[in-house]
Amino acid sequence: MLIARVVGSAVSTAKDARMTGLKLLVVRPASPADDVSGDAFVAVDTVGAGSGELVLVARGSAARHTDRTADCPIDAAIVGILDSLEVEGEVTFRKS
Amino acid sequence: MLIARVVGSAVSTAKDARMTGLKLLVVRPASPADDVSGDAFVAVDTVGAGSGELVLVARGSAARHTDRTADCPIDAAIVGILDSLEVEGEVTFRKS
Amino acid sequence: MLIARVVGSAVSTAKDARMTGLKLLVVRPASPADDVSGDAFVAVDTVGAGSGELVLVARGSAARHTDRTADCPIDAAIVGILDSLEVEGEVTFRKS
Amino acid sequence: MLIARVVGSAVSTAKDARMTGLKLLVVRPASPADDVSGDAFVAVDTVGAGSGELVLVARGSAARHTDRTADCPIDAAIVGILDSLEVEGEVTFRKS
Amino acid sequence: MLIARVVGSAVSTAKDARMTGLKLLVVRPASPADDVSGDAFVAVDTVGAGSGELVLVARGSAARHTDRTADCPIDAAIVGILDSLEVEGEVTFRKS
Repeated sequence: MLIARVVGSAVSTAKDARMTGLKLLVVRPASPADDVSGDAFVAVDTVGAGSGELVLVARGSAARHTDRTADCPIDAAIVGILDSLEVEGEVTFRKS
Repeated sequence: MLIARVVGSAVSTAKDARMTGLKLLVVRPASPADDVSGDAFVAVDTVGAGSGELVLVARGSAARHTDRTADCPIDAAIVGILDSLEVEGEVTFRKS
Repeated sequence: MLIARVVGSAVSTAKDARMTGLKLLVVRPASPADDVSGDAFVAVDTVGAGSGELVLVARGSAARHTDRTADCPIDAAIVGILDSLEVEGEVTFRKS
Repeated sequence: MLIARVVGSAVSTAKDARMTGLKLLVVRPASPADDVSGDAFVAVDTVGAGSGELVLVARGSAARHTDRTADCPIDAAIVGILDSLEVEGEVTFRKS
Repeated sequence: MLIARVVGSAVSTAKDARMTGLKLLVVRPASPADDVSGDAFVAVDTVGAGSGELVLVARGSAARHTDRTADCPIDAAIVGILDSLEVEGEVTFRKS
């Protein structure tokens, strides 16, 4: 799963009917130290993520393997909020 | 989902029979501020998107999870028209 | 779908049995103005495409959603021959 | 499958219910000589991999084709621990 | 399908049970003229490919659409050995 930071949100009224009610968040890929880089995209939130949080994003068909998103035309979903990350023996991120 | 701008359209007569009647639009990846970059590609429109609009594009198998595109040999579909985007507390895009 | 130009063909005798009889073409990604760039790869032709033509290539599981390719171990198929492309109000490509 | 090195681990309490109990490791893409490069991401461990080990990572729907991960919203799983790699007749990696 | 050259092999004892007996080869992306570039990765051989051969690699779910790999947690399989490639009217590769 991609490590990403929630940086914003999207509003779309004219969308596929199956997406009604889905929360659309803007995320950016991030390093284990919470440095963002790369292009922003939109992921469906399935875990109650909020702005600024570091999250796990599942892409591709994986995004439809949650109770909320099954059979929706989506290719990216936030499936976890990160509490902490450890790399090479060091804690690189801890949720504040 | 990818944030993209509709920049044009494609015509293909000799195509897979399952694609008959599908509207083929040319899109380019865009930032949350509606700046395009990256390579153009063709996506099937499922929501009545028009030229210049900022849209959500679902890629991969997700593109076939709409009533209109089920079982079609397509890997990209426009599944939402963006009304607005907000990043870091600022509105970066609002549909005019 | 990727916009690509057919630039050649491939011959493979020792291949998966399900691929018997499939026409294997070499394609390169192209811009809407038919300028090629990026790496060549091999796609299965399902629409009678010929050398030099600009085509639509479906990648991933989409490539197996045609009558000819169902259940084949392939990840790229030509699913349409482009007649024309229009970008920003200008015709960027018209099949000759 | 991607060759990757296990460089750390991730903790996520608020995550999709189907991911409960899955071991989340941070990995980085690696060359056959065990030189890492590219961005770190999180993969589910299915084979008891440990920090520093060189592993095979299956991405996309492949990640859900293990007994442990079936139907989980994940797009990356460690499916093998590498004992050795040989390239151009030379052993480039041997597990110590 | 990706054009790739077989450059080596991988050994993994601790791997998913469904991968038992699969032949794991190291491949590198190649041009139609058999020039390799890009990062090496591991693909399952399903056609008896040998070191130095130019092959077709199916990635993603396509890799599981062979008799040998069905339902295995793999995302890359060699599905054909290339005999020859022709680009722009010239033979760029012929198996020796």
